[in-house]
Amino acid sequence: MSAGERPIVVVVGGGFAGLACARALGRAPADVVLVDRRNHHLFQPLLYQVATAALSPANIASPIRRIMRTQRNCTVVMGEVEAIDAEAGTIGIDGNERTFDYLVLACGMTHNYFGHDDWQGVAPGLKSVDDALEIRRRVLLAFEAAEVEADDAARRAELTFVVIGAGPTGVELAGAIAEIATQSIPRDFRRVDTRAAKVILVEGADRVLPTFHEASSERAKRDLEKLGVEVVLGRMASAIDGDGVTIGTGDGARRIDSRCVVWAAGLRAESVVGMLEVPKDKMGRVEVESDLSAPGHPNIFVVGDLIAYTDPENGEVVPGVAQAAMQSGRFVGELIAAEVGGGSRGSSGAFHYNDKGSMATIGRARAVAEVGSLRFGGFVAWVLWSVVHVSFLIGFRSKLFAILEWSWLYIFWSRGARLITGHRAQPDPADRVDAAG
Amino acid sequence: MSAGERPIVVVVGGGFAGLACARALGRAPADVVLVDRRNHHLFQPLLYQVATAALSPANIASPIRRIMRTQRNCTVVMGEVEAIDAEAGTIGIDGNERTFDYLVLACGMTHNYFGHDDWQGVAPGLKSVDDALEIRRRVLLAFEAAEVEADDAARRAELTFVVIGAGPTGVELAGAIAEIATQSIPRDFRRVDTRAAKVILVEGADRVLPTFHEASSERAKRDLEKLGVEVVLGRMASAIDGDGVTIGTGDGARRIDSRCVVWAAGLRAESVVGMLEVPKDKMGRVEVESDLSAPGHPNIFVVGDLIAYTDPENGEVVPGVAQAAMQSGRFVGELIAAEVGGGSRGSSGAFHYNDKGSMATIGRARAVAEVGSLRFGGFVAWVLWSVVHVSFLIGFRSKLFAILEWSWLYIFWSRGARLITGHRAQPDPADRVDAAG
Repeated sequence: MSAGERPIVVVVGGGFAGLACARALGRAPADVVLVDRRNHHLFQPLLYQVATAALSPANIASPIRRIMRTQRNCTVVMGEVEAIDAEAGTIGIDGNERTFDYLVLACGMTHNYFGHDDWQGVAPGLKSVDDALEIRRRVLLAFEAAEVEADDAARRAELTFVVIGAGPTGVELAGAIAEIATQSIPRDFRRVDTRAAKVILVEGADRVLPTFHEASSERAKRDLEKLGVEVVLGRMASAIDGDGVTIGTGDGARRIDSRCVVWAAGLRAESVVGMLEVPKDKMGRVEVESDLSAPGHPNIFVVGDLIAYTDPENGEVVPGVAQAAMQSGRFVGELIAAEVGGGSRGSSGAFHYNDKGSMATIGRARAVAEVGSLRFGGFVAWVLWSVVHVSFLIGFRSKLFAILEWSWLYIFWSRGARLITGHRAQPDPADRVDAAG
Repeated sequence: MSAGERPIVVVVGGGFAGLACARALGRAPADVVLVDRRNHHLFQPLLYQVATAALSPANIASPIRRIMRTQRNCTVVMGEVEAIDAEAGTIGIDGNERTFDYLVLACGMTHNYFGHDDWQGVAPGLKSVDDALEIRRRVLLAFEAAEVEADDAARRAELTFVVIGAGPTGVELAGAIAEIATQSIPRDFRRVDTRAAKVILVEGADRVLPTFHEASSERAKRDLEKLGVEVVLGRMASAIDGDGVTIGTGDGARRIDSRCVVWAAGLRAESVVGMLEVPKDKMGRVEVESDLSAPGHPNIFVVGDLIAYTDPENGEVVPGVAQAAMQSGRFVGELIAAEVGGGSRGSSGAFHYNDKGSMATIGRARAVAEVGSLRFGGFVAWVLWSVVHVSFLIGFRSKLFAILEWSWLYIFWSRGARLITGHRAQPDPADRVDAAG
């Protein structure tokens, strides 16, 4: 930077990590530029509720500008990052080049189809509002198609929902789809019995919620089965097309006819990270230094889900969850604030993740929660889950409306956002191949 | 129909007219099939509030199945009507042929570009949830683009919004866009002054709200101008492209550079009506008999916006508004119910429209209202408008949430649904030409 000018900190990504970083720089003598390709911050832990028609997108998303409006040293730019020149200290956004003194990458992860990118069109993942609306459209359309389908086998396929991947998102989606079929809509249909719908949750590991304690996994599996979800463990999808899914290979392979498949199985780093020549793990995450800087680039930091980092204090790998994103974002924000304020970097020490616990819901009034060595299940865990999630929603407005929507759902089983909209938000596999080729 | 079987009444369209018709048949000894290409009933008078980020789609739309769930003689079918054979008494829906004893067309109107179908891609109209989300996307994106635009002329074009057509929808859109620019978002932006945005409302007639009393038009124009809207009267768009609009022709033509043009100028009958060979007016509406049957087809009725009908009682043309839709739908539902119950048709007499008044809002706390010979303006009219619209929203749930959202907007000027979603909901003009050709 030129003498006398304020240093420029460019933060890429307005998720939990990026927001926390920008906010931690609120009083720093620096100009913060917060870049996101979308205009809104998304409360991702509740995105599955949009996909299952319980909440509207606006309940869990707020304009980033609105969130940052009172922080006068922060400029919000909606745009796509096209290039990063680490040597020159420049970043290209929608054809404009900007200089930076510090760069913080907080752009998160996207779906990983492990080389089967053609599956994306038939098995959408859940990362954005548009993804959620597309899944909602497919789930609701399946019941509509079943209602007018004359052929028994075709109707069974319309009423079969497959969720691939049993992390928190997969578990929550499967539970919610089962509840839609059995509780929310049966009386709305005349010909088809929606309670006959089948929800199949497929997981490659030998238990659901593999990152949780085994007892929580057991409890979650039992709760899912009570809701009628079939849980298939230790098997992976080997083929997915418009007619269904093949699970496993060879003699043990099982074919499931289904018109609605959802992908919750894998993630990889957003492509922006590929613009940086630094060591990465096989998911594309950056193997950061202990101050979360990128190796060889002391002024470039990586935060949130994008870090491949083992906590030196306890030897544990920091997971890709909202809490870790917020903590790493704040850590880097404070580090840069100290440095531009004249302090030395060493005083920040290494990043340490303080794990406050994990939670996942299974349906309307069941959840599993782990806080330290404590483990809860059932209604108590669900209440805890609700309180924690509402308290983290940004802004009083979103909190109020989410509580109201949930109360309504809880009392009347009525999902407020059962709308089929959009034409074809998800790109065709064909388009994708063309675009890639 | 075969002896002993219950007559089948097919109602096409789940808007105000179709729902009213189906409900009026609730106790009739008939099987009612309610067909709509969408899964939801839409409260169209508030759709402009979705387009301007004040409400979420779910606040003003409810699943048709949900609305009709308790009416056991009604089956809801989501599907597209492909053919009507009036002689055979059959209707083709998504490849399936159904027979009918009575057919009621309640499928409403769509945008009319008066031969300029290529304008559709650059000047979307407002009829569906997808239309509203597309307009919301364009309005919000224009401010985002202005924030990063370096060129003065280009920034002015980004900040210029043109609404073509000053009926209630056009007036309400123009007022709401002006309020977004001047009240909701100025503090969210750093470089651009959104209060400098220009909203231009263009109307071919010599006053806004041409169907209202002249005094209301005057009042509405004054209120719009107070909000900073430029009202251009007696002029029509002669060209629209991605860079702006030309108003008028020849020497008096005026070019307006704008990146966001909204079409609220014309309507024509949905294409389903074209499948019936009956006399129509130039908007494609059916010149119905006094019992609202289609001439020459005593078992086919037309209701809602689709009728070209002069009330024999007072010689006035029945307007295309929600009230008239509900009344005509109920009239035909009751007529069919009486007939299938063994009564004679003549006893229903001619359809008479009971006009309870008209209203349009201009911004947050201003409106014009006409009830009989009474005319209100300002805050009183706005309160009346709010009460009437909320009371007509279907279901307690939608009412409650709409009231809450409005209270929030009224107190904090904060629009709850400021999300930019979707990629390209509106079909390209090119696609449309291909499809038509």
